[in-house]
Amino acid sequence: MNNVLGLRCIHCGKELEAAPGLYTCPMCGTRDGILDVMYDYLNIKKNTPRRQVVHSQDYSIFRYLPFLPVEPSTPRPHLRVGWTPLYRPPALTRNLGMPHLYIKDDGQNPTASLKDRASVIAVIKAVEENMTTIACSSTGNAASSLAGNAAAMGLRTFIFVPGRAPQGKVAQLLIFGANVISVQGSYNDAFRLSAEAIERWGWYNRNAAINPYLVEGKKTVALEIAEQMDWEVPDWVVVSVGDGCTIAGVWKGFQDLYQVGWIDKLPKLLGVQSSGCSPLVDAFLENRAWRPAEENTIADSIAVGVPRNPEKALRAVRDSGGTMVAVSDADILDAMRLLGRTSGIFGEPAGVAGLAGLKYMVGNGVIRADEKVVVIVTGNGLKDVQNAIAAAGEPIKVEPSLDNLIEELKRRGLA
Amino acid sequence: MNNVLGLRCIHCGKELEAAPGLYTCPMCGTRDGILDVMYDYLNIKKNTPRRQVVHSQDYSIFRYLPFLPVEPSTPRPHLRVGWTPLYRPPALTRNLGMPHLYIKDDGQNPTASLKDRASVIAVIKAVEENMTTIACSSTGNAASSLAGNAAAMGLRTFIFVPGRAPQGKVAQLLIFGANVISVQGSYNDAFRLSAEAIERWGWYNRNAAINPYLVEGKKTVALEIAEQMDWEVPDWVVVSVGDGCTIAGVWKGFQDLYQVGWIDKLPKLLGVQSSGCSPLVDAFLENRAWRPAEENTIADSIAVGVPRNPEKALRAVRDSGGTMVAVSDADILDAMRLLGRTSGIFGEPAGVAGLAGLKYMVGNGVIRADEKVVVIVTGNGLKDVQNAIAAAGEPIKVEPSLDNLIEELKRRGLA
Repeated sequence: MNNVLGLRCIHCGKELEAAPGLYTCPMCGTRDGILDVMYDYLNIKKNTPRRQVVHSQDYSIFRYLPFLPVEPSTPRPHLRVGWTPLYRPPALTRNLGMPHLYIKDDGQNPTASLKDRASVIAVIKAVEENMTTIACSSTGNAASSLAGNAAAMGLRTFIFVPGRAPQGKVAQLLIFGANVISVQGSYNDAFRLSAEAIERWGWYNRNAAINPYLVEGKKTVALEIAEQMDWEVPDWVVVSVGDGCTIAGVWKGFQDLYQVGWIDKLPKLLGVQSSGCSPLVDAFLENRAWRPAEENTIADSIAVGVPRNPEKALRAVRDSGGTMVAVSDADILDAMRLLGRTSGIFGEPAGVAGLAGLKYMVGNGVIRADEKVVVIVTGNGLKDVQNAIAAAGEPIKVEPSLDNLIEELKRRGLA
Repeated sequence: MNNVLGLRCIHCGKELEAAPGLYTCPMCGTRDGILDVMYDYLNIKKNTPRRQVVHSQDYSIFRYLPFLPVEPSTPRPHLRVGWTPLYRPPALTRNLGMPHLYIKDDGQNPTASLKDRASVIAVIKAVEENMTTIACSSTGNAASSLAGNAAAMGLRTFIFVPGRAPQGKVAQLLIFGANVISVQGSYNDAFRLSAEAIERWGWYNRNAAINPYLVEGKKTVALEIAEQMDWEVPDWVVVSVGDGCTIAGVWKGFQDLYQVGWIDKLPKLLGVQSSGCSPLVDAFLENRAWRPAEENTIADSIAVGVPRNPEKALRAVRDSGGTMVAVSDADILDAMRLLGRTSGIFGEPAGVAGLAGLKYMVGNGVIRADEKVVVIVTGNGLKDVQNAIAAAGEPIKVEPSLDNLIEELKRRGLA
């Protein structure tokens, strides 16, 4: 926390002390009064040379400790969060005709999604505030990452999921020993009930929009991208959008680096939602306030009809000079196949929505094929096998005989 | 390949040149004539100081290139295979009363299992031999890892899986663009049909026992364990056993390091099978030749009734002074819960069988609780969600109302 100056309300601009239990601006309330962590960039610039990070042997998000809102002395869970690989898959770049396309595979985190970056911060903050129980609502990935990191840290969890959360994610929660509350309703219902329960029992609150520290964990994906590209900032960073916290985190990360002079430009952001649930894309494109939307998409991790961090997200996209786009579920399944076949990366639907959006924006000329673009794959496809099967079809069934095999392969023109 | 001297038949001892297309000893046949790669350890010792590896910035299996049977100049797939985390989870060590217990989480590989270590070698060898199609049979993980690595490398794959392979693994294959042949029979049927097809069409053979180079990829898990423990070799390394190639690889890795003088002792190996399919444990404990067994266990990755690498596996355990044990499916589900709740690691049934076996051996005094032990978790639990749900139970279903929640938590004594 050496470098944390305090918290600033993104709505009224009021600056507040970073005190335990303070999640939102008391003046603006829990809906609008989202807080942003402020850093002493001059101090970081003076005391943390970039080469110190480059030479760090810590291949996790904690290589960026000077940019994180945690005490260096607080115990941390043992799980290795972050420093996920950044690939430039040759067959994918050829397929799209984009020679400078990179994939950041955040499905390689311990519980297989980008949300581990936020959850590891949450459990550390809970310990700093002497809390033993931590709670959240989530469409799934925030939940499983919280459950995993809390198990590693020895904390008790209550996790509120909407009834539709895929089995794979629920199984993870249960195996990690979480108390899982399956709310028979929408994500919004789950969020509201979790907020009431957190107030009732005084648990630590890991709801990402409400808790200002979690975006700070998420921003590490941007810090890594910059370092892995040798501080050559890409023209575009593409990421899927649900609550809005992840894209806000990406923007915060690049801003941090720009403020301390480790990078000399900022990327444009492309935020992608599913057309089955696109309140933020609609608000952005129509330049109006967002309105609640249906949650009608296979991309469950971004099926957020009532986003909790709309302002931070919309500002990030606007300030970056970027844009937003909605893609169909069919485009998402196409992107899942394309990514798998050309790169050996298996992304979940929300995880590959960014790639679908990029393809669309290159098609309509908003992004040029020769620009340097990073797509963040936010979660592993193993979390949602049903949709993968829908995307990929069925295997070739044969009896255990070579004759039967020859016949089946011939019929399909495969041999 | 600079350091590869040739291949030696583990049955008759004959030494052969490492030539393309040579998989097994021509004298002893495909069943018995398993080959082992021989290295010029004196040359490695002379030209590769240990500190060169320690200072390598390559955090993948290729930091150990002098110990690998591939040409340094051959293109490699972009996926980051290996350098998986080695954890000492505090709550797990407390729970078992084993202060020096470590978990090597190989579910953190790109396609979520240890098999990536073998498959990445397979696709490189295929390219070195100018092959464009590669095939294997597998209970699942070898297959999905081959499909992923082949997609990354631009190779075509034919993959033979038994009808019972879990959906998650099959979905991975299909997304990676593999031609998946679902053989309506046992693993043995799938293996036989793949061998016939490989001969018929001349595809590159990734069947692990048959292809001598694959064990060389698997051995990197041992190289990493040694380096991550600062070259202090553990007393025991525990791993689940199916075909026998993984435990043979672990042994080969430690032998390599011992030969070049980077470590000064060897660990004992504990090999674990499910009691529903334990041909190698039975052979070991009764000191007799192995006999085919039923495949009757939830741990599908080690449900191998006709193991293809029995001799290398049994010798590894014997030579190490270690032992073997079979555990029930109930013990495996217990271990899955224990590992999840105490460490935030979600292992598949075969992946946690080692932990179940360790618990048993500590209980009966064969392994002392104060010994230094590494358990290798060989695959991620997301690959097999059904069994995780069987292990972990169901979530607490509530209507979206605080009153209903209070009532449900009270009823369970949770609040």
